[in-house]
Amino acid sequence: MNDRPTGRPRTIDPDAVSLVALRLFDERGYDSVSMDDVAAEAGVSRRSLFRLFPTKGALVWGGLDEFRERFEDALTDRPTDEPAATALRAAYRVAATFPTDALEVTRRRLRVIGANPSLRQEGAFFVTELEHTLVAFVAARDGVPEDDLGVQVRCAVFAAAADAALTWWARHGEGGPEEVVDGVLAELG
Amino acid sequence: MNDRPTGRPRTIDPDAVSLVALRLFDERGYDSVSMDDVAAEAGVSRRSLFRLFPTKGALVWGGLDEFRERFEDALTDRPTDEPAATALRAAYRVAATFPTDALEVTRRRLRVIGANPSLRQEGAFFVTELEHTLVAFVAARDGVPEDDLGVQVRCAVFAAAADAALTWWARHGEGGPEEVVDGVLAELG
Repeated sequence: MNDRPTGRPRTIDPDAVSLVALRLFDERGYDSVSMDDVAAEAGVSRRSLFRLFPTKGALVWGGLDEFRERFEDALTDRPTDEPAATALRAAYRVAATFPTDALEVTRRRLRVIGANPSLRQEGAFFVTELEHTLVAFVAARDGVPEDDLGVQVRCAVFAAAADAALTWWARHGEGGPEEVVDGVLAELG
Repeated sequence: MNDRPTGRPRTIDPDAVSLVALRLFDERGYDSVSMDDVAAEAGVSRRSLFRLFPTKGALVWGGLDEFRERFEDALTDRPTDEPAATALRAAYRVAATFPTDALEVTRRRLRVIGANPSLRQEGAFFVTELEHTLVAFVAARDGVPEDDLGVQVRCAVFAAAADAALTWWARHGEGGPEEVVDGVLAELG
Protein backbone atom coordinates (compact mmCIF):
# COMPACT_ATOMS: atom_id res chain seq x y z
CA MET A 1 0.00 0.00 0.00
CA ASN A 2 2.97 2.37 0.14
CA ASP A 3 4.54 4.17 -2.78
CA ARG A 4 7.75 2.38 -3.57
CA PRO A 5 10.56 4.68 -2.48
CA THR A 6 12.86 3.49 -5.26
CA GLY A 7 12.50 2.14 -8.75
CA ARG A 8 10.46 3.27 -11.72
CA PRO A 9 7.53 5.50 -10.74
CA ARG A 10 4.23 3.86 -11.60
CA THR A 11 1.71 5.59 -13.79
CA ILE A 12 -1.71 5.23 -12.20
CA ASP A 13 -4.71 5.03 -14.49
CA PRO A 14 -7.55 7.02 -12.86
CA ASP A 15 -10.18 5.13 -14.87
CA ALA A 16 -8.90 1.79 -13.59
CA VAL A 17 -8.93 3.09 -10.02
CA SER A 18 -12.52 4.35 -10.32
CA LEU A 19 -13.64 1.04 -11.75
CA VAL A 20 -12.12 -0.82 -8.81
CA ALA A 21 -13.77 1.64 -6.39
CA LEU A 22 -17.18 1.50 -8.05
CA ARG A 23 -17.15 -2.31 -8.04
CA LEU A 24 -16.50 -2.21 -4.30
CA PHE A 25 -19.17 0.46 -3.65
CA ASP A 26 -21.70 -1.42 -5.78
CA GLU A 27 -21.03 -4.83 -4.25
CA ARG A 28 -20.41 -3.98 -0.59
CA GLY A 29 -22.35 -0.72 -0.20
CA TYR A 30 -20.92 2.79 -0.50
CA ASP A 31 -20.86 3.48 3.24
CA SER A 32 -19.09 0.20 4.02
CA VAL A 33 -16.07 0.92 1.83
CA SER A 34 -13.28 3.25 2.98
CA MET A 35 -10.68 5.07 0.93
CA ASP A 36 -8.17 2.65 2.48
CA ASP A 37 -10.14 -0.28 1.11
CA VAL A 38 -10.11 1.32 -2.34
CA ALA A 39 -6.36 2.00 -2.20
CA ALA A 40 -5.63 -1.58 -1.11
CA GLU A 41 -7.86 -3.14 -3.76
CA ALA A 42 -6.49 -0.90 -6.51
CA GLY A 43 -2.90 -1.49 -5.41
CA VAL A 44 -2.07 2.19 -5.02
CA SER A 45 -0.96 4.21 -2.03
CA ARG A 46 -3.43 6.19 0.02
CA ARG A 47 -1.51 9.33 -0.99
CA SER A 48 -1.79 8.60 -4.69
CA LEU A 49 -5.47 7.83 -4.34
CA PHE A 50 -6.21 11.12 -2.57
CA ARG A 51 -4.15 13.02 -5.14
CA LEU A 52 -6.38 11.70 -7.93
CA PHE A 53 -9.65 11.66 -5.98
CA PRO A 54 -9.80 14.10 -3.05
CA THR A 55 -13.03 12.54 -1.72
CA LYS A 56 -14.89 9.25 -1.94
CA GLY A 57 -17.64 11.08 -3.79
CA ALA A 58 -15.19 12.15 -6.49
CA LEU A 59 -14.67 8.47 -7.32
CA VAL A 60 -18.37 8.26 -8.06
CA TRP A 61 -19.03 11.54 -9.85
CA GLY A 62 -15.79 12.10 -11.74
CA GLY A 63 -16.69 10.24 -14.92
CA LEU A 64 -19.91 12.06 -15.68
CA ASP A 65 -18.08 15.09 -17.05
CA GLU A 66 -17.70 13.23 -20.33
CA PHE A 67 -21.45 12.71 -20.46
CA ARG A 68 -22.01 16.45 -20.05
CA GLU A 69 -19.38 17.33 -22.63
CA ARG A 70 -20.95 15.01 -25.22
CA PHE A 71 -24.35 16.50 -24.40
CA GLU A 72 -23.18 20.10 -24.77
CA ASP A 73 -21.28 19.44 -28.00
CA ALA A 74 -24.26 17.63 -29.48
CA LEU A 75 -26.63 20.48 -28.61
CA THR A 76 -24.29 22.99 -30.25
CA ASP A 77 -24.32 20.91 -33.44
CA ARG A 78 -28.11 20.74 -33.83
CA PRO A 79 -29.74 22.77 -36.65
CA THR A 80 -30.97 26.10 -35.35
CA ASP A 81 -34.46 25.71 -36.84
CA GLU A 82 -35.15 22.46 -34.98
CA PRO A 83 -37.70 22.43 -32.12
CA ALA A 84 -36.02 22.39 -28.70
CA ALA A 85 -37.47 19.00 -27.72
CA THR A 86 -36.08 17.34 -30.87
CA ALA A 87 -32.64 18.79 -30.25
CA LEU A 88 -32.65 17.74 -26.58
CA ARG A 89 -33.67 14.21 -27.43
CA ALA A 90 -30.92 13.92 -30.05
CA ALA A 91 -28.31 15.35 -27.67
CA TYR A 92 -29.31 12.95 -24.89
CA ARG A 93 -28.94 10.08 -27.33
CA VAL A 94 -25.40 11.16 -28.17
CA ALA A 95 -24.51 11.74 -24.51
CA ALA A 96 -25.93 8.35 -23.48
CA THR A 97 -23.85 6.55 -26.10
CA PHE A 98 -20.93 5.55 -23.88
CA PRO A 99 -17.82 3.90 -25.29
CA THR A 100 -18.14 0.11 -24.93
CA ASP A 101 -15.23 -0.03 -22.51
CA ALA A 102 -16.97 2.51 -20.24
CA LEU A 103 -20.25 0.60 -19.95
CA GLU A 104 -19.40 -1.36 -16.81
CA VAL A 105 -18.07 1.63 -14.90
CA THR A 106 -21.07 3.73 -16.00
CA ARG A 107 -23.55 1.08 -14.96
CA ARG A 108 -21.94 0.71 -11.54
CA ARG A 109 -21.66 4.48 -11.11
CA LEU A 110 -25.37 4.96 -11.77
CA ARG A 111 -26.30 2.04 -9.51
CA VAL A 112 -24.25 3.50 -6.66
CA ILE A 113 -25.76 6.98 -7.12
CA GLY A 114 -29.27 5.48 -7.31
CA ALA A 115 -28.74 3.51 -4.12
CA ASN A 116 -27.24 6.42 -2.12
CA PRO A 117 -29.33 9.57 -2.24
CA SER A 118 -26.85 11.28 0.09
CA LEU A 119 -24.35 11.29 -2.79
CA ARG A 120 -26.50 13.92 -4.46
CA GLN A 121 -24.74 16.70 -2.60
CA GLU A 122 -21.39 16.00 -4.21
CA GLY A 123 -23.14 15.57 -7.53
CA ALA A 124 -25.09 18.80 -7.12
CA PHE A 125 -22.59 20.74 -9.19
CA PHE A 126 -22.84 18.26 -12.06
CA VAL A 127 -26.62 18.14 -11.94
CA THR A 128 -26.94 21.93 -11.65
CA GLU A 129 -24.59 22.52 -14.56
CA LEU A 130 -26.53 20.12 -16.78
CA GLU A 131 -29.86 21.69 -15.80
CA HIS A 132 -28.48 25.11 -16.58
CA THR A 133 -27.33 23.94 -20.02
CA LEU A 134 -30.85 22.66 -20.74
CA VAL A 135 -32.58 25.81 -19.52
CA ALA A 136 -30.26 28.18 -21.39
CA PHE A 137 -30.70 26.18 -24.60
CA VAL A 138 -34.49 25.92 -24.48
CA ALA A 139 -34.96 29.56 -23.46
CA ALA A 140 -32.71 30.76 -26.31
CA ARG A 141 -34.32 28.45 -28.86
CA ASP A 142 -37.85 29.47 -27.89
CA GLY A 143 -37.02 33.14 -27.35
CA VAL A 144 -38.35 33.27 -23.80
CA PRO A 145 -36.68 34.17 -20.47
CA GLU A 146 -34.82 31.42 -18.62
CA ASP A 147 -37.13 31.80 -15.63
CA ASP A 148 -40.25 31.21 -17.71
CA LEU A 149 -42.45 28.62 -15.99
CA GLY A 150 -42.85 26.51 -19.14
CA VAL A 151 -39.10 26.41 -19.78
CA GLN A 152 -38.34 25.47 -16.19
CA VAL A 153 -40.90 22.67 -16.16
CA ARG A 154 -40.01 21.24 -19.58
CA CYS A 155 -36.32 21.13 -18.71
CA ALA A 156 -36.95 19.56 -15.32
CA VAL A 157 -39.18 16.94 -16.94
CA PHE A 158 -36.65 16.13 -19.68
CA ALA A 159 -33.80 15.82 -17.19
CA ALA A 160 -35.85 13.70 -14.78
CA ALA A 161 -37.02 11.35 -17.53
CA ALA A 162 -33.48 10.88 -18.89
CA ASP A 163 -32.16 10.35 -15.37
CA ALA A 164 -34.84 7.75 -14.56
CA ALA A 165 -34.11 5.96 -17.85
CA LEU A 166 -30.36 5.86 -17.13
CA THR A 167 -30.94 4.62 -13.58
CA TRP A 168 -33.34 1.92 -14.81
CA TRP A 169 -30.84 0.80 -17.44
CA ALA A 170 -28.09 0.56 -14.81
CA ARG A 171 -30.23 -1.92 -12.87
CA HIS A 172 -32.01 -3.86 -15.59
CA GLY A 173 -30.88 -2.94 -19.10
CA GLU A 174 -28.70 -4.86 -21.52
CA GLY A 175 -26.07 -3.34 -23.80
CA GLY A 176 -25.78 0.44 -23.69
CA PRO A 177 -28.35 2.90 -22.29
CA GLU A 178 -28.91 5.02 -25.42
CA GLU A 179 -31.95 3.08 -26.70
CA VAL A 180 -33.66 3.21 -23.31
CA VAL A 181 -33.05 6.95 -22.93
CA ASP A 182 -34.15 7.66 -26.49
CA GLY A 183 -37.33 5.62 -26.15
CA VAL A 184 -38.32 7.40 -22.96
CA LEU A 185 -37.65 10.87 -24.39
CA ALA A 186 -39.57 10.02 -27.57
CA GLU A 187 -42.67 9.50 -25.45
CA LEU A 188 -42.37 12.93 -23.83
CA GLY A 189 -43.15 14.42 -27.25
CA MET B 1 -28.24 35.14 23.90
CA ASN B 2 -28.05 33.01 27.05
CA ASP B 3 -30.90 31.12 28.62
CA ARG B 4 -32.00 33.09 31.65
CA PRO B 5 -30.86 31.12 34.69
CA THR B 6 -33.87 32.19 36.75
CA GLY B 7 -37.46 33.16 36.12
CA ARG B 8 -40.18 31.63 34.02
CA PRO B 9 -38.84 29.26 31.34
CA ARG B 10 -39.64 30.56 27.88
CA THR B 11 -41.57 28.46 25.41
CA ILE B 12 -39.83 28.66 22.07
CA ASP B 13 -41.96 28.37 18.95
CA PRO B 14 -40.01 26.30 16.39
CA ASP B 15 -42.04 27.75 13.50
CA ALA B 16 -41.12 31.28 14.52
CA VAL B 17 -37.44 30.32 14.76
CA SER B 18 -37.45 28.72 11.29
CA LEU B 19 -39.10 31.78 9.81
CA VAL B 20 -36.41 34.02 11.29
CA ALA B 21 -33.72 31.67 9.97
CA LEU B 22 -35.19 31.35 6.50
CA ARG B 23 -35.52 35.13 6.18
CA LEU B 24 -31.82 35.43 7.00
CA PHE B 25 -30.81 32.61 4.61
CA ASP B 26 -32.94 34.06 1.82
CA GLU B 27 -31.76 37.63 2.24
CA ARG B 28 -28.08 37.16 3.10
CA GLY B 29 -27.31 33.80 1.50
CA TYR B 30 -27.38 30.43 3.24
CA ASP B 31 -23.60 30.09 3.54
CA SER B 32 -23.20 33.58 5.03
CA VAL B 33 -25.49 32.94 8.00
CA SER B 34 -24.29 30.97 11.04
CA MET B 35 -26.31 29.22 13.71
CA ASP B 36 -25.10 31.97 16.05
CA ASP B 37 -26.63 34.57 13.75
CA VAL B 38 -29.92 32.68 13.78
CA ALA B 39 -29.92 32.36 17.58
CA ALA B 40 -29.20 36.06 18.01
CA GLU B 41 -31.84 37.18 15.53
CA ALA B 42 -34.46 34.81 16.98
CA GLY B 43 -33.61 35.85 20.56
CA VAL B 44 -32.93 32.28 21.73
CA SER B 45 -29.84 30.67 23.16
CA ARG B 46 -27.49 28.68 20.98
CA ARG B 47 -28.33 25.66 23.15
CA SER B 48 -32.07 25.99 22.65
CA LEU B 49 -31.58 26.47 18.92
CA PHE B 50 -29.49 23.29 18.57
CA ARG B 51 -31.99 21.37 20.67
CA LEU B 52 -34.75 22.23 18.20
CA PHE B 53 -32.64 22.15 15.04
CA PRO B 54 -29.51 19.98 15.25
CA THR B 55 -28.15 21.37 11.94
CA LYS B 56 -28.56 24.42 9.77
CA GLY B 57 -30.09 22.18 7.13
CA ALA B 58 -32.82 21.11 9.56
CA LEU B 59 -34.00 24.73 9.68
CA VAL B 60 -34.54 24.54 5.94
CA TRP B 61 -36.00 21.07 5.51
CA GLY B 62 -38.00 20.63 8.70
CA GLY B 63 -41.28 22.09 7.49
CA LEU B 64 -41.70 19.92 4.42
CA ASP B 65 -42.89 16.95 6.47
CA GLU B 66 -46.34 18.51 6.51
CA PHE B 67 -46.31 18.68 2.73
CA ARG B 68 -45.53 14.97 2.54
CA GLU B 69 -48.18 14.11 5.11
CA ARG B 70 -50.86 16.02 3.23
CA PHE B 71 -49.73 14.32 0.01
CA GLU B 72 -49.86 10.82 1.49
CA ASP B 73 -53.22 11.35 3.19
CA ALA B 74 -54.70 12.75 -0.01
CA LEU B 75 -53.47 9.78 -2.07
CA THR B 76 -55.00 7.35 0.41
CA ASP B 77 -58.35 9.12 0.05
CA ARG B 78 -58.56 8.92 -3.76
CA PRO B 79 -61.10 6.50 -5.31
CA THR B 80 -59.44 3.20 -6.15
CA ASP B 81 -60.77 3.14 -9.73
CA GLU B 82 -59.20 6.47 -10.64
CA PRO B 83 -56.21 6.55 -13.05
CA ALA B 84 -52.90 7.06 -11.24
CA ALA B 85 -52.16 10.39 -12.96
CA THR B 86 -55.50 11.87 -11.86
CA ALA B 87 -54.93 10.79 -8.27
CA LEU B 88 -51.37 12.17 -8.21
CA ARG B 89 -52.48 15.51 -9.59
CA ALA B 90 -55.25 15.78 -7.01
CA ALA B 91 -52.90 14.81 -4.18
CA TYR B 92 -50.28 17.35 -5.27
CA ARG B 93 -52.98 20.03 -5.28
CA VAL B 94 -53.91 19.19 -1.69
CA ALA B 95 -50.26 19.02 -0.59
CA ALA B 96 -49.46 22.35 -2.27
CA THR B 97 -52.33 24.08 -0.47
CA PHE B 98 -50.37 25.54 2.43
CA PRO B 99 -52.07 27.32 5.32
CA THR B 100 -52.01 31.07 4.67
CA ASP B 101 -49.77 31.69 7.65
CA ALA B 102 -47.23 29.22 6.24
CA LEU B 103 -46.92 30.86 2.82
CA GLU B 104 -44.03 33.18 3.63
CA VAL B 105 -41.94 30.51 5.31
CA THR B 106 -42.68 28.05 2.48
CA ARG B 107 -41.74 30.55 -0.19
CA ARG B 108 -38.46 31.39 1.53
CA ARG B 109 -37.72 27.71 2.18
CA LEU B 110 -38.14 26.84 -1.51
CA ARG B 111 -36.10 29.87 -2.60
CA VAL B 112 -33.24 28.86 -0.29
CA ILE B 113 -33.33 25.23 -1.49
CA GLY B 114 -33.45 26.39 -5.12
CA ALA B 115 -30.47 28.69 -4.65
CA ASN B 116 -28.32 26.12 -2.79
CA PRO B 117 -28.05 22.78 -4.58
CA SER B 118 -25.72 21.52 -1.86
CA LEU B 119 -28.72 21.47 0.50
CA ARG B 120 -30.04 18.53 -1.46
CA GLN B 121 -28.03 16.09 0.62
CA GLU B 122 -29.85 16.93 3.82
CA GLY B 123 -33.12 16.89 1.91
CA ALA B 124 -32.34 13.56 0.26
CA PHE B 125 -34.36 11.67 2.85
CA PHE B 126 -37.42 13.84 2.25
CA VAL B 127 -37.10 13.63 -1.53
CA THR B 128 -36.47 9.88 -1.51
CA GLU B 129 -39.45 9.22 0.76
CA LEU B 130 -41.74 11.23 -1.49
CA GLU B 131 -40.46 9.48 -4.61
CA HIS B 132 -41.01 6.13 -2.97
CA THR B 133 -44.58 7.06 -2.09
CA LEU B 134 -45.23 7.97 -5.74
CA VAL B 135 -43.65 4.81 -7.12
CA ALA B 136 -45.42 2.49 -4.68
CA PHE B 137 -48.77 4.14 -5.43
CA VAL B 138 -48.48 4.07 -9.22
CA ALA B 139 -47.13 0.52 -9.31
CA ALA B 140 -49.96 -0.74 -7.09
CA ARG B 141 -52.62 1.17 -9.00
CA ASP B 142 -51.39 -0.06 -12.39
CA GLY B 143 -50.58 -3.59 -11.19
CA VAL B 144 -46.96 -3.50 -12.36
CA PRO B 145 -43.66 -3.93 -10.47
CA GLU B 146 -42.16 -0.87 -8.81
CA ASP B 147 -39.03 -1.16 -10.93
CA ASP B 148 -40.99 -1.05 -14.19
CA LEU B 149 -39.39 1.49 -16.53
CA GLY B 150 -42.69 3.25 -17.26
CA VAL B 151 -43.52 3.62 -13.57
CA GLN B 152 -40.07 4.95 -12.73
CA VAL B 153 -40.18 7.50 -15.54
CA ARG B 154 -43.74 8.69 -14.93
CA CYS B 155 -43.07 9.19 -11.23
CA ALA B 156 -39.79 11.00 -11.85
CA VAL B 157 -41.52 13.26 -14.38
CA PHE B 158 -44.44 14.03 -12.05
CA ALA B 159 -42.15 14.81 -9.14
CA ALA B 160 -39.83 16.97 -11.26
CA ALA B 161 -42.71 18.94 -12.76
CA ALA B 162 -44.27 19.59 -9.34
CA ASP B 163 -40.89 20.56 -7.92
CA ALA B 164 -40.18 22.97 -10.79
CA ALA B 165 -43.63 24.51 -10.36
CA LEU B 166 -43.12 25.01 -6.61
CA THR B 167 -39.67 26.52 -7.15
CA TRP B 168 -41.01 28.87 -9.84
CA TRP B 169 -43.85 29.95 -7.57
CA ALA B 170 -41.40 30.68 -4.75
CA ARG B 171 -39.58 33.14 -7.01
CA HIS B 172 -42.37 34.64 -9.09
CA GLY B 173 -45.83 33.51 -8.02
CA GLU B 174 -48.51 35.38 -6.14
CA GLY B 175 -50.79 33.89 -3.47
CA GLY B 176 -50.36 30.18 -2.85
CA PRO B 177 -48.63 27.65 -5.13
CA GLU B 178 -51.51 25.21 -5.62
CA GLU B 179 -52.79 26.75 -8.88
CA VAL B 180 -49.33 26.79 -10.43
CA VAL B 181 -48.66 23.17 -9.44
CA ASP B 182 -52.08 22.04 -10.64
CA GLY B 183 -51.76 23.83 -13.98
CA VAL B 184 -48.38 22.25 -14.65
CA LEU B 185 -49.53 18.75 -13.73
CA ALA B 186 -52.68 19.13 -15.87
CA GLU B 187 -50.45 19.55 -18.91
CA LEU B 188 -48.56 16.32 -18.22
CA GLY B 189 -51.81 14.47 -19.00
